[in-house]
Amino acid sequence: METTSGLQSWEELENLLKQKDRSQLEAYIETMNAGELVRAIFHLSKDDQIQLLNLLSPDYSAYLIEEIPDAKATELIEELSADKAASIINEMWSDDQADLIGSLEEKSAEAILASMNPEEAAEVRKLISYKEDTAGGIMITEYLAFPETATVGQVIYDMNQHAEEYSDYHLQYVYVISPQGKLVGVLRLRDLLLTKPSTLLTNIMIRDILSVNTSETLDGLLAFFDDHDFLGVPVVNEKYKLVGVVLRKDVLEAEGDRSDAEFMRLQGIVGGEELRTMPLSLRSRRRLSWLSLNIVLNVISASVIALYQDTLSTVIALAVFLPIISDMSGCSGNQAVAVSMRELSLNIIKPTELFRVLWQELSVGIINGVVLGILIGVGAWLWKGNPYLGLVAGGALAINTLVAVGLGGSIPLILKRIGMDPALASSPILTTITDMLGFFLVLSFATLLLPMLT
Amino acid sequence: METTSGLQSWEELENLLKQKDRSQLEAYIETMNAGELVRAIFHLSKDDQIQLLNLLSPDYSAYLIEEIPDAKATELIEELSADKAASIINEMWSDDQADLIGSLEEKSAEAILASMNPEEAAEVRKLISYKEDTAGGIMITEYLAFPETATVGQVIYDMNQHAEEYSDYHLQYVYVISPQGKLVGVLRLRDLLLTKPSTLLTNIMIRDILSVNTSETLDGLLAFFDDHDFLGVPVVNEKYKLVGVVLRKDVLEAEGDRSDAEFMRLQGIVGGEELRTMPLSLRSRRRLSWLSLNIVLNVISASVIALYQDTLSTVIALAVFLPIISDMSGCSGNQAVAVSMRELSLNIIKPTELFRVLWQELSVGIINGVVLGILIGVGAWLWKGNPYLGLVAGGALAINTLVAVGLGGSIPLILKRIGMDPALASSPILTTITDMLGFFLVLSFATLLLPMLT
Repeated sequence: METTSGLQSWEELENLLKQKDRSQLEAYIETMNAGELVRAIFHLSKDDQIQLLNLLSPDYSAYLIEEIPDAKATELIEELSADKAASIINEMWSDDQADLIGSLEEKSAEAILASMNPEEAAEVRKLISYKEDTAGGIMITEYLAFPETATVGQVIYDMNQHAEEYSDYHLQYVYVISPQGKLVGVLRLRDLLLTKPSTLLTNIMIRDILSVNTSETLDGLLAFFDDHDFLGVPVVNEKYKLVGVVLRKDVLEAEGDRSDAEFMRLQGIVGGEELRTMPLSLRSRRRLSWLSLNIVLNVISASVIALYQDTLSTVIALAVFLPIISDMSGCSGNQAVAVSMRELSLNIIKPTELFRVLWQELSVGIINGVVLGILIGVGAWLWKGNPYLGLVAGGALAINTLVAVGLGGSIPLILKRIGMDPALASSPILTTITDMLGFFLVLSFATLLLPMLT
Repeated sequence: METTSGLQSWEELENLLKQKDRSQLEAYIETMNAGELVRAIFHLSKDDQIQLLNLLSPDYSAYLIEEIPDAKATELIEELSADKAASIINEMWSDDQADLIGSLEEKSAEAILASMNPEEAAEVRKLISYKEDTAGGIMITEYLAFPETATVGQVIYDMNQHAEEYSDYHLQYVYVISPQGKLVGVLRLRDLLLTKPSTLLTNIMIRDILSVNTSETLDGLLAFFDDHDFLGVPVVNEKYKLVGVVLRKDVLEAEGDRSDAEFMRLQGIVGGEELRTMPLSLRSRRRLSWLSLNIVLNVISASVIALYQDTLSTVIALAVFLPIISDMSGCSGNQAVAVSMRELSLNIIKPTELFRVLWQELSVGIINGVVLGILIGVGAWLWKGNPYLGLVAGGALAINTLVAVGLGGSIPLILKRIGMDPALASSPILTTITDMLGFFLVLSFATLLLPMLT
């Protein structure tokens, strides 16, 4: 966005920061949409980013912290004083508070919790104890609950009294609880408006109420909101006590984060998140941790070549086909990995349906193996005028494609079944095997046919 | 899910299908959640799937069609008679109708449109004309709009008269339009309930109303719903006439579909969607179309090896390092591709910020290149006892890593800038270049140092 003054938006922010003009800064931020704001902030130096958070009032800083990616938010909050950080975090939603504080180093987290309003701090400590990507980890605690003995008039009076406090709440539903805190009913806001004030909640509430347990998984929550067109669902603990509300939008957001992280891990970014503004040493270390594993796997598969050096030096043309065959099979296998990953995430297949998937992949593998094998085989024949070279290269590619496709379809299911993350491990396991096998097939076929190749 | 009878849910479905018992089938489907239903349907034979759609009443069939993945829905609808398909599609939301009919072959689409209620068919034809992933393509046309001269009482009377028809509408907002159909205001449902029936809409409506244009992009809509906590936004055409409503949940769903397709394309699944129940020939053909391109790229890069056959046959140990160096650089480059893809989708970087990204990647590239180069160089030295072999392998890997990381970071930005899809093309372009360069570096360094290597 270019401003009317012709400056880029981050240059405008820099200027206003230099003038330390809080109200102008806030007015300017109001004019930006979320995307522009995030981009502008990433253009500021880290010192300016911190100064900005210190200068803005806590509600503006909280908005800013909620908009930027989590890893960046954590990095900046660590740099603030505990008091300042606490004042910002106080302005956030309970689920975001827990996520943010849970991602801080323990020392900073403790300091901030000690500076927070004690009631909110206790809430956050409880929320942190739930696993991420469960109902307990995703739920918010800003909801309204009243005893069944309350009247409609009392509820409306309470809502008027606390209008400001509740202004940010999601008030689509009002929950009704027993004296022990158990969830007994729910009311839509419109039911309150259309009922006489003296009516008891117990007389108008919906009793047949759906809820989820704190340990409900993200997949379970997605299925729930797929089935029910609700904006939120109440969360109960093992004693059926109401402890929070999971909002549809937070579930969709959590799923988006999960699939982003899966995508990054599949490309070898350990931890699932990297921003280029992170410290160089951290980015370099995270990427290297995966590359170092990869180098070991690569050396293992290349060692097959070392075993066949004699054959290779006799028919040096084979060296041209080694990378082609290993790379092509890797691609074929990764296509099958992608289809399995997607069918797993769409819930179309379960990890136990290995043989069905294997069968369906092998039929594609045979066709594609034959087609690609003929292509490369004829190419090799024409190049060197030797049909046996074509047989070696084409046969190796055909068999290796079949194996790669079968493995690619199966590996994600097997990993999922033994409780490993298929996004991180599928591709390196697959390509190590197909590289080794590809080298072995080419070189052992060539060794067998050596008299005809020279 | 196992049923009380001990049968798997698809076996139960098969049984009920054999008995042709519609009401029992529908009752049984009511007991399943969406995930179970989809999985069960994928276990049925295609004939059974079609028979199920023919047997169920149209609203159940419509529910089923909306739950299964789009490609499967298209496949099944093509198999039904135009009348049956039309009766099912009549029950769907306007945006889903347009998506489904737009994905059919033209002949089937025309036959179904001819069998549909003419008014709905005209609506669908209009919706299909909008581009997918724009406000026009995502919007629904089931909304309520009244003239500004109507009274609150008239609106409530109309809503009561059409209660059944409107029962599925999203009625969070009621729109107010001018005699020319222009959008002039909006009312929340609760405003209607709290106002005297004789009040004119023009007197209570909110006039300061946000809307989007039919051509608004998916990214624009995501930013809009990020900024505004609305459940929907009205869509206007270039004359500011109200033509539809985009719901927040449909925008989030469209984004999920888009990133799924991006993931699949990055792994070489052309078209972005493949289900294992698709016809074998289609699956095989789609995968081959990308693999055939890949084989050409592979042959191009391997041809570098062919140029250096003399060097290679003199120092055959080099053959072991060729795949290691090309594969490792490919991995390093793909990490940078993944970070760029994500930063683009998070709106943190713009395609024009090439030099900034290049600079940030090159610093990682230097560190990782040096570390990996030393690792492989020392390994090569120890293996053959020749420090020059280590120098060749390590030097080639270090330089190739640096180039791969720089290219990997830049290519997605360049492709995006020239209007190509970075998800499909980034990785093959990258690995072709890094393979060629890797082979060239190893073999040309070796040629220069040939006397020291033998």
